[in-house]
Amino acid sequence: MKNSLIIQSGGPTPVINSSLYGIIKESKKIKSIIYGSKNGILGLINDDLVNLNDLDEENLELLKQTPGAILGSARYCLKDFNHQDYELIKNNIIKYHLSYIYVIGGNDSMDTANKLALYCFNNNLAVKVIGVPKTIDNDLLYTDHTPGFGSALKYVVNTLACVKEDVKCYKNGKVTIVEIMGRDTGWLTAGSVFANPDLIYLPESNFNLDNFLKDVNTIYQQKKYCLVCVSEGIKLSNENDKEIDQFGHTQLGGVSLFLANLVKEKLNISSRAIELSIPQRCSSFIASKVDVKEAIKCGQYAVKYALKDYTNKMVIMKRNKEYAISYKLENLDNIANGVKYFPTSWIINNNYISDAFKTYAFPLMQKELKIKYQNGIIKHSKIKD
Amino acid sequence: MKNSLIIQSGGPTPVINSSLYGIIKESKKIKSIIYGSKNGILGLINDDLVNLNDLDEENLELLKQTPGAILGSARYCLKDFNHQDYELIKNNIIKYHLSYIYVIGGNDSMDTANKLALYCFNNNLAVKVIGVPKTIDNDLLYTDHTPGFGSALKYVVNTLACVKEDVKCYKNGKVTIVEIMGRDTGWLTAGSVFANPDLIYLPESNFNLDNFLKDVNTIYQQKKYCLVCVSEGIKLSNENDKEIDQFGHTQLGGVSLFLANLVKEKLNISSRAIELSIPQRCSSFIASKVDVKEAIKCGQYAVKYALKDYTNKMVIMKRNKEYAISYKLENLDNIANGVKYFPTSWIINNNYISDAFKTYAFPLMQKELKIKYQNGIIKHSKIKD
Repeated sequence: MKNSLIIQSGGPTPVINSSLYGIIKESKKIKSIIYGSKNGILGLINDDLVNLNDLDEENLELLKQTPGAILGSARYCLKDFNHQDYELIKNNIIKYHLSYIYVIGGNDSMDTANKLALYCFNNNLAVKVIGVPKTIDNDLLYTDHTPGFGSALKYVVNTLACVKEDVKCYKNGKVTIVEIMGRDTGWLTAGSVFANPDLIYLPESNFNLDNFLKDVNTIYQQKKYCLVCVSEGIKLSNENDKEIDQFGHTQLGGVSLFLANLVKEKLNISSRAIELSIPQRCSSFIASKVDVKEAIKCGQYAVKYALKDYTNKMVIMKRNKEYAISYKLENLDNIANGVKYFPTSWIINNNYISDAFKTYAFPLMQKELKIKYQNGIIKHSKIKD
Repeated sequence: MKNSLIIQSGGPTPVINSSLYGIIKESKKIKSIIYGSKNGILGLINDDLVNLNDLDEENLELLKQTPGAILGSARYCLKDFNHQDYELIKNNIIKYHLSYIYVIGGNDSMDTANKLALYCFNNNLAVKVIGVPKTIDNDLLYTDHTPGFGSALKYVVNTLACVKEDVKCYKNGKVTIVEIMGRDTGWLTAGSVFANPDLIYLPESNFNLDNFLKDVNTIYQQKKYCLVCVSEGIKLSNENDKEIDQFGHTQLGGVSLFLANLVKEKLNISSRAIELSIPQRCSSFIASKVDVKEAIKCGQYAVKYALKDYTNKMVIMKRNKEYAISYKLENLDNIANGVKYFPTSWIINNNYISDAFKTYAFPLMQKELKIKYQNGIIKHSKIKD
């Protein structure tokens, strides 16, 4: 028996279960058992696997509109090779006759996949390890973009388009500061440009509080409202030591709350913070169909490549002309822990985003899924333990 | 000429423009001019009207998926009858040959409509004033429910269903506290019950911080995550003077942030606040089709009743068996400034909601609109000035 194991790892996205779907569909073509590892790598370490062959047709199809990570996720880093975890992993690989391991995840998870592949190779375990990209942050190296980004982008753009209709209702409106995910990179926040907000700030921008207040004030005086989009991870420059200190002490409140309070205090303009928070990475009812399809394809190609005996690689997407995607491989150690930053050449004046980004991101948020609702509520897939 | 004027007032909803659509469609049956008042009652006072007969077919139809208030809104209260505003209103009523005025709004706006109707009556102006209900808060008296509530409900339920998939991904999860709109009443927060969170607290609940912490802790120890839904307007009881004082100083941060910080501090459990904020009242891409249809009907019936010479009334919805709605009238002064609270008999143990509410609210969030997207982004209606 040459069995397969699927691991979901890191932060959830609206389409991580679509990649799971792709791997299951493709793996079913070979007659063997497909296991899911519960809670990331922890399932493989602790012998906590679930048999995915049992999944019925309806729940299999519903994976395409189920957010979260249905196998459970983890943020657990594999240690150096002498750690006891590896002995447990080895035992379970042998016990379950595993020949193929798929790790769906981001750059941290690719480090796990990388270690797993090297360990198997060094210990003469005939296991192929293939990574499947996943992150709404779009910050993985070598791949044109990551599954999850297109759907989060579509959520952000459509939500902002609607928020904008609300924001401009009043003659004397507010300064509305929308905080978008992205601790290190600004890809998703840059996506807000499709909804034409007034100002956009990324971690890669040179953010200066005085310029921010000046920009906001200029726009507000003119329009009587101002819609600002900021990445959660924008960096405050050293000039603003006092405020940075204050920011550091805002407990759970994010950067949008800090900036909204600042606008109120320093400019005496009514303001509001909106943190898009978890809904931006899980609202599958507004998923991008292009994204879902690509997430499935990445899963399918992972299996195709594994069956051809590739290992220690991650599936990457290469963009061809007229927007078509080819699915290639890249070495895991080139991707593990690496970060693809937003190109600073696509940032205008440190407070806006250029059309070059729009050309890049436009195809990724196209088309809508036909969502299955039951009694007005989106249906999600369920896996029995 | 017996012309019409439409006023949108108060906080926007996903369907306030659907009621506008209903009024325009029905008013077109009489040959006269349909005006929109820009920014609520301010347009009528300041002679700032827009001709709605010019709206082309596409933009007219798109009103059904356009959130915000396309005519602009206001939170302006009409003063006593000797105020100079009324002279300006009178002049414009005569100037534009207005015979019918429709006010789409909540309980404050019905006070405006009420004053307008009485002023016209007392000053021999032959103007019929009819109110059209609107609020996501569902807190208007006499009507079974309000247009706007069903769509906000649908957003809240579907978003929570997705957030829940995300929240339960990790073996050691967080306490997630979701803050839902409702300053005085808990209707919308109660709607979260359809997504089966762990705890639900309304302004009408007897909320006690110690009990809250005990409940959260019990659930967390058992499930290793806890999903809590709270109304923005929950009232903290006097016993917790110190915390209330702290809460009062949290600047712009809401109750969810306060409670999440408290969980972290007092229980030493990782926590997170999610404020659904403006997206819950504007995300028309997940509108309830039942709600949109009823909002249109309320607009249409307002016109039907006005043409029958009713005035100083608001359209209300009466529920018949098997969920069918009749559109009746109720006196404006019975509704103006009144509040329909959530029945305390539907609150269980001060931390959950009974099935009686589910039976009531279930039909309101049914069915989905076929949304028109352009290049992946929801299309909105535009009115030229």
